[in-house]
Amino acid sequence: MKATSIYAARDVRLEDQPDPRIQKPTDAVVKVVAACVCGSDLWYYRGDNPIKEPFRIGHEFVGIVEEVGPEVRSLRKGDFVIAPFMYSDNTCAHCRVGIQSACSTGGFWGGPDRDGLMADGGQGEYVRVPLADGTLVSTREFPDAAMVPSLLALSDVMGTGWHAAMSAGVREGDTVVVVGDGAVGLSAVLAASRMGAERVVAMSRHEARQQVARSFGATDVIAERGEAAEAAVLALTNGIGADAVLECVGTGQAMNTAVTVARPGATVGYVGVPHGVELPVRSMFSRNVGVAGGVAPVRQYLPSLRDDVLSGAINPGLVFDLDLPLDQVAEGYAAMDERRAIKTMLRP
Amino acid sequence: MKATSIYAARDVRLEDQPDPRIQKPTDAVVKVVAACVCGSDLWYYRGDNPIKEPFRIGHEFVGIVEEVGPEVRSLRKGDFVIAPFMYSDNTCAHCRVGIQSACSTGGFWGGPDRDGLMADGGQGEYVRVPLADGTLVSTREFPDAAMVPSLLALSDVMGTGWHAAMSAGVREGDTVVVVGDGAVGLSAVLAASRMGAERVVAMSRHEARQQVARSFGATDVIAERGEAAEAAVLALTNGIGADAVLECVGTGQAMNTAVTVARPGATVGYVGVPHGVELPVRSMFSRNVGVAGGVAPVRQYLPSLRDDVLSGAINPGLVFDLDLPLDQVAEGYAAMDERRAIKTMLRP
Repeated sequence: MKATSIYAARDVRLEDQPDPRIQKPTDAVVKVVAACVCGSDLWYYRGDNPIKEPFRIGHEFVGIVEEVGPEVRSLRKGDFVIAPFMYSDNTCAHCRVGIQSACSTGGFWGGPDRDGLMADGGQGEYVRVPLADGTLVSTREFPDAAMVPSLLALSDVMGTGWHAAMSAGVREGDTVVVVGDGAVGLSAVLAASRMGAERVVAMSRHEARQQVARSFGATDVIAERGEAAEAAVLALTNGIGADAVLECVGTGQAMNTAVTVARPGATVGYVGVPHGVELPVRSMFSRNVGVAGGVAPVRQYLPSLRDDVLSGAINPGLVFDLDLPLDQVAEGYAAMDERRAIKTMLRP
Repeated sequence: MKATSIYAARDVRLEDQPDPRIQKPTDAVVKVVAACVCGSDLWYYRGDNPIKEPFRIGHEFVGIVEEVGPEVRSLRKGDFVIAPFMYSDNTCAHCRVGIQSACSTGGFWGGPDRDGLMADGGQGEYVRVPLADGTLVSTREFPDAAMVPSLLALSDVMGTGWHAAMSAGVREGDTVVVVGDGAVGLSAVLAASRMGAERVVAMSRHEARQQVARSFGATDVIAERGEAAEAAVLALTNGIGADAVLECVGTGQAMNTAVTVARPGATVGYVGVPHGVELPVRSMFSRNVGVAGGVAPVRQYLPSLRDDVLSGAINPGLVFDLDLPLDQVAEGYAAMDERRAIKTMLRP
């Protein structure tokens, strides 16, 4: 099969790899229908994260079950399935409380399991899925083709945006500020809106992203940054601040803005992987602003988000504005790197 | 009247001051029945917080309403009342969501209101109470004398310990770790226990405090600190970590221990005023450990905690192990400073 590896910054290659096969009785093999490129893949692509040796990349995909191991109970050949960006057993103590991203036996696509067995990356034609019952969520029948992008978005960005909103405790009627207009930030706008927020304020200075934000339910858009953005939120909220803030960037400035615009007693739900963030603890303490979130337990949210997509309640697939065949994976990365695309879908 | 001022580190004086009188129509004057010394008073006493000029100190008291202004509706002369450690209007946008410690018109005992009018400190014979309706909570009748310490504890330490447990989201059946064995930490043990935690782990190396912790419902006591304490909690919880952690110290080491012993998905409720705390954001993010809390909105919790004291459900007054007449206030500070006492009660 063909699958993508990253060799070095700006060096992504689609190569021949051995076809995956069942290696443990809890495995499944999935034929990928659609995969995509994540903002976090760009950390390697841009050289922000070191690459010691080439590795198989990609952690978002939907596809069709090709084969299941003898201990797989919930899936069968031909099922259409959504994979979260980590695999998990869904039975350990952490999974049982809904933090599948801390699963005792789970791991990352393209990485080793506890026995050192490497999982495939998602940007390829086939994937061996460890712990298939605990990882994959099925729609059974092949969905309408128009829904594939939205189901694919559940793999990471929509589940991650949802986690930001859950972590911040968004409630009906709330005023919610979303910091960050990447695919995750836009998904967080959609999540807050779906949860019944009355006012959803998107921070974005990019016309195309503002439009997606509005179609996802943003009622206000703030194009300023830093102190000007903070002042704009306070002006919008009679000086009170937001009931919930969703931080979807991961930089120090974004986090400071998020804490500052939160009203006393509110929570900042954060899902942007922290790069150089120092949490402003004294401001948080004096104003009772909490911080919650982290690596999203997408598997927890997949069943209900799948139903929301299938019913048409949400359409997170709008974050994809570039649709390429898998053999153009390198261009998919370049387009996102150069901000010509919000998010690239790849079709094997 | 006599009231306490602090002049410099280790220089606390009981002095003659003008008798307070109603100055605004929303004021009340309260005759203090009992007051006490707070761990945060010791920051000034120990020279950790600078003292520019002498000021009236003390922010915890119970007493009897002596006089009310013409706009006070809920109180009358003769009522026995509990004062929270800040005054508040209980009607502004922040108060209405239960964060009275961020009240738009509230303030601190011994400090100025928005018009620059100084409030009295709590360690005196009388106190002018601004915004009396929004601040004081009454028991109406004078309680049994044996209950006075427990009602006084609600002014700050019990309300603050309760806030730690609320912020951490303690639920029935939880395993809760409390970091800190001062009066607030002990109160947090009582709060977690009252909320139905099944296992409450107190971190304490002081025999007398361990005893109070056990009488407040601690099921386990860990005398170690740092990594040894963390290992002990993990051993107690099958390697999973605590469902909720209450950080009641405010140092960097205490916070790191709190985050480390929290299970993935748990929240650290923190009420120790941060001194040199850097929140370990990468560890928090990778394990989905949230941090919530701050300056406790004691006023929110006072009515229900008052009822719990009056019914005998909780007895937070056990944190007082030194009971002095007000004219020995200096000894009350010294005893706490030298750790001869957990918390000193003062009787005018």
